[in-house]
Amino acid sequence: MASLKVPASVPPPYEDAEQLNKAFKGWGTNEGLIISILAHRNAAQRNLIRQVYAEAYGQDLLKDLDKELSSDFEALVSFVATMEKNCIDIEIANIFFSQILFKQRVVLLWTLDLAERDAYLANEATKRFTSSNWVLMEIACTRSSHDLFKARQAYHARYKKSLEEDVAYHTTGDFRKLLVPLVSAFRYEGEEVNTMLAKSEAKILHEKISDKAYSDDEIIRILTTRSKAQLNATLNHYNNSFGNAINKNLKEDADNEFLKLLRATIKCLTYPEKYFEKLLRLAIKKIGTDEWALTRVVTTRAEVDMERIKEEYHRRNSVTLDHDIAGEASGDYERMLLALIGHGDA
Amino acid sequence: MASLKVPASVPPPYEDAEQLNKAFKGWGTNEGLIISILAHRNAAQRNLIRQVYAEAYGQDLLKDLDKELSSDFEALVSFVATMEKNCIDIEIANIFFSQILFKQRVVLLWTLDLAERDAYLANEATKRFTSSNWVLMEIACTRSSHDLFKARQAYHARYKKSLEEDVAYHTTGDFRKLLVPLVSAFRYEGEEVNTMLAKSEAKILHEKISDKAYSDDEIIRILTTRSKAQLNATLNHYNNSFGNAINKNLKEDADNEFLKLLRATIKCLTYPEKYFEKLLRLAIKKIGTDEWALTRVVTTRAEVDMERIKEEYHRRNSVTLDHDIAGEASGDYERMLLALIGHGDA
Repeated sequence: MASLKVPASVPPPYEDAEQLNKAFKGWGTNEGLIISILAHRNAAQRNLIRQVYAEAYGQDLLKDLDKELSSDFEALVSFVATMEKNCIDIEIANIFFSQILFKQRVVLLWTLDLAERDAYLANEATKRFTSSNWVLMEIACTRSSHDLFKARQAYHARYKKSLEEDVAYHTTGDFRKLLVPLVSAFRYEGEEVNTMLAKSEAKILHEKISDKAYSDDEIIRILTTRSKAQLNATLNHYNNSFGNAINKNLKEDADNEFLKLLRATIKCLTYPEKYFEKLLRLAIKKIGTDEWALTRVVTTRAEVDMERIKEEYHRRNSVTLDHDIAGEASGDYERMLLALIGHGDA
Repeated sequence: MASLKVPASVPPPYEDAEQLNKAFKGWGTNEGLIISILAHRNAAQRNLIRQVYAEAYGQDLLKDLDKELSSDFEALVSFVATMEKNCIDIEIANIFFSQILFKQRVVLLWTLDLAERDAYLANEATKRFTSSNWVLMEIACTRSSHDLFKARQAYHARYKKSLEEDVAYHTTGDFRKLLVPLVSAFRYEGEEVNTMLAKSEAKILHEKISDKAYSDDEIIRILTTRSKAQLNATLNHYNNSFGNAINKNLKEDADNEFLKLLRATIKCLTYPEKYFEKLLRLAIKKIGTDEWALTRVVTTRAEVDMERIKEEYHRRNSVTLDHDIAGEASGDYERMLLALIGHGDA
């Protein structure tokens, strides 16, 4: 269930576009107004505003937003340049820099069309190897087959390459072996389950895991091609027949990065809300919050399953996500995040 | 260039549907009429006829065609059953059986929607291993990215599974390693070429081939993810830098089935008309023509590049394809094939 709150009566898109254009004009930028509009419009409405904005003002709304939200940034740069070089001041300036960056990123990611946003996040992830490749897995495993395909189309349009081409190029070995078929998949989405197959493939998975052949062709095949319903049945059989959930058996070596990715893949495919809860928990509890992950999860899930994720978060942490975000973020960044997770009224 | 000939003035679809329905009625079936209509309508027109037919007669045109074209078959079965068991007669009966089967198959394959047809052919291929897997490669490499994706969608709808799921399940080892990414690819289709990349990847290909590491991850990555334009540039660099076309260097072992498939893949990606010419040549010259391949190539290429394939065929065999098909096929089957390759008038 989505957390996004859209007001009962939404102004026509040309009015929203006009308000946004006004917010950009004059001295400084009226971030409060920008957030009050964009954080309460769904994807279709935002696309419409962007379209109407381009027609009325001959500019891409995203470009104008980017420019406006970074104007504080430029002011800060001039300010820092005039400052005496005092370590503490530089540190404070850095915090301000970051705050502007986070605010800018959350507004831009949110305003992007869904497919463009996934293409953008995936492209970023192909460039930063290691743990950021989880973003590729996350996109591949938690989007619908159709949405993943639309992201691949948007990737062509924006980067003049294919997503799988970049993923394959920037990865090697077991990581490539898992990630390329994950991002290339177009899984069947029906609820049909073949019980015989579930049993036989649960057995295959158990054999390979017992042999510690974690990147075996058969494990990769089953995880990357079967429908989520079929995979779920297979993993239930695994649990029933072998006495452990598969992820428990994949925990032998806590430092093995590939095993971690494999466990996360299985979690994304079967319990996405638990995967996202953990991601948020780690992002927030970390020394120096991981705003990159926080922003990504909030912007990509607000229209999908954020209510379930919040429920899971509350259960697991005994405090609400709203409470923790308010404690860790601040200013416009905090305001935007809270609006997207449905805090307060539309 | 397509070989299909559509008359200058095409009757409205309801008239075509009515004519077809008439052809099905009465004693026997009027195959000539069926061919004269269907073999001269393009994909969009055939889809429209099928739609109008369903509305007017409450039946799927394909089902009615199937029933009518196999009615001869049933008559033949009764006839054979009453015959005295004479070896020569059985042989003749077998020839008749085959002729009916071929005629039925060419009409049905042709009438199917493009995406459905590819899904159908691919599904057949997943069930018959070895050389028929070339059909999977052929579909993956000679369709546009968008058409391949539409075939994957049609596969979901018809088989309640994904194409890559079936391909992965029915293959192993090197064949799986090549075929799964081929059928899952959504290649970028722009003409942009990165020359530096072409050079470096030509070098990688040459190193791996020199080491006889034919199924190396890097060879698979390059062949299965790069755009056709980029791949072409890479293979040109290969030829220029190393003095041989890549397929020549992949010919060390003539009996290696995987090497054969690899060469065919490269041919399909860079010179599809040459690949199809050879397929037709072998199908026709074989003792006992390979009607399966002949029918597949004619029905799938008539609206795409059959004119180029015919040109290539003429050049390579010093006779026309029309001539050879007339020599090998007969009856309605021959008539249908010749119509599709543009022989005679619409």
